[in-house]
Amino acid sequence: MKTFATEYRVIYGDCDPFDVVYYANYFDFFERGRTELFRDLGITYRQVQDMDIFLPVSETYSKFYKSARYDDLLQIETTIAFLKKASIRFDYKIFKKQTRVLLTEGYTVHAFVNREGKVQRAPEEVADKVKGLIEE
Amino acid sequence: MKTFATEYRVIYGDCDPFDVVYYANYFDFFERGRTELFRDLGITYRQVQDMDIFLPVSETYSKFYKSARYDDLLQIETTIAFLKKASIRFDYKIFKKQTRVLLTEGYTVHAFVNREGKVQRAPEEVADKVKGLIEE
Amino acid sequence: MKTFATEYRVIYGDCDPFDVVYYANYFDFFERGRTELFRDLGITYRQVQDMDIFLPVSETYSKFYKSARYDDLLQIETTIAFLKKASIRFDYKIFKKQTRVLLTEGYTVHAFVNREGKVQRAPEEVADKVKGLIEE
Amino acid sequence: MKTFATEYRVIYGDCDPFDVVYYANYFDFFERGRTELFRDLGITYRQVQDMDIFLPVSETYSKFYKSARYDDLLQIETTIAFLKKASIRFDYKIFKKQTRVLLTEGYTVHAFVNREGKVQRAPEEVADKVKGLIEE
Repeated sequence: MKTFATEYRVIYGDCDPFDVVYYANYFDFFERGRTELFRDLGITYRQVQDMDIFLPVSETYSKFYKSARYDDLLQIETTIAFLKKASIRFDYKIFKKQTRVLLTEGYTVHAFVNREGKVQRAPEEVADKVKGLIEE
Repeated sequence: MKTFATEYRVIYGDCDPFDVVYYANYFDFFERGRTELFRDLGITYRQVQDMDIFLPVSETYSKFYKSARYDDLLQIETTIAFLKKASIRFDYKIFKKQTRVLLTEGYTVHAFVNREGKVQRAPEEVADKVKGLIEE
Repeated sequence: MKTFATEYRVIYGDCDPFDVVYYANYFDFFERGRTELFRDLGITYRQVQDMDIFLPVSETYSKFYKSARYDDLLQIETTIAFLKKASIRFDYKIFKKQTRVLLTEGYTVHAFVNREGKVQRAPEEVADKVKGLIEE
Repeated sequence: MKTFATEYRVIYGDCDPFDVVYYANYFDFFERGRTELFRDLGITYRQVQDMDIFLPVSETYSKFYKSARYDDLLQIETTIAFLKKASIRFDYKIFKKQTRVLLTEGYTVHAFVNREGKVQRAPEEVADKVKGLIEE
């Protein structure tokens, strides 16, 4: 499975009194990862949303090995772990870019739902692109 | 003008590497202040929203005297500075509760708009309650 | 194991365009849960920190059943799942207070470390209080 | 005065239920602006911090003209409005990059302080670089 990468620069607002990124903020970085993966695939989250399909997070996990610090340039690497009929899982690895040290690893599972929150099949446009990716 | 008060406990997630509340987060505290003022007035923000009236912030200012720190219990005091035809201004003072030391002071100006973002008159229910307050 | 409860009122700043709490922000609520558990135990996080002992999160997980919405009053319930020599795990359940509907469930695992990030034994004051709790 | 520019991509986590960036989050964008201005000047915030000099915000203001929306690519433009003996002011303009529409405009005033919070003269390295900039 192909890996998609995007960068992020840590600001003071991301950090806590221990001079490291506050743990909740890694989940913002995960969002950046999956957003850019979709954009690279040629279909943006906004386009999916315009089909009235939404991808709320149903489950998430993260393991923290080393701390990201103020002003670090991070590399967020994202892959698609699976695509099922009505759900998708993204896996993330966050590195300190310069040293390639792995800081954090995690995943998010998402349901495909409509505006009323009812579970839907993944739209064909999404499914096709993701399958193409998996077969690569 | 009557003052409305609400409390907030600072968490690590609010603080930055200097062991104080990150400046952007005071604007979250301001939101808590105006929300509870409206609730105390007997009309919630959610009810205003249900009339298809929204109050985006058009302007905000804050002056920081002393820092709020981790685990501080804050007292957020809010007053209505003015109500015009289509706008409202809230003034805020944030104290460290135990010592009554003033930490921050600021304001937000809001327009009344509809779902399309077009400026609207303040709803009568809101105007009446606020005027009652000003005349008190 | 005794459960500790604390409340939190959702603001606009916690929510995303789908009118629900953004998934990363539940981890802030988890922090509120463990902070108040410690305070109820009679030993605050700040006191632990004053012993030069810190509790960075090494792992976290969350499952989202139903969405918390704007202006919801949440009940955050926290228990201690285990205390090992140098680590502790907290379990969280977040309910919509009025209806007692379970929205989210998750955990955080923390290491005990010193200022340099070296793993330490849990301080006796903490271990004693937690053991008292487990034996209750 | 030269203008420094940096970009930022809006995520769901930045937005509120009205599908626009939550007002507090613009102050994070301001931080990105001044950080990259300093980096472009050849002296990073981290280097200033290593001289035991810190720049807490003493005052901030923002005016919101139009809303930044999900997935917008923003252009943050920063200038130095003044450098006094012990304080500095940055001015910011935030544009939607593609259309060059001005969304937000604001400023932050910072004191130069030491680790104990006592006001200090601006470090010579900083003052020299900023003066060079003003005379350009």
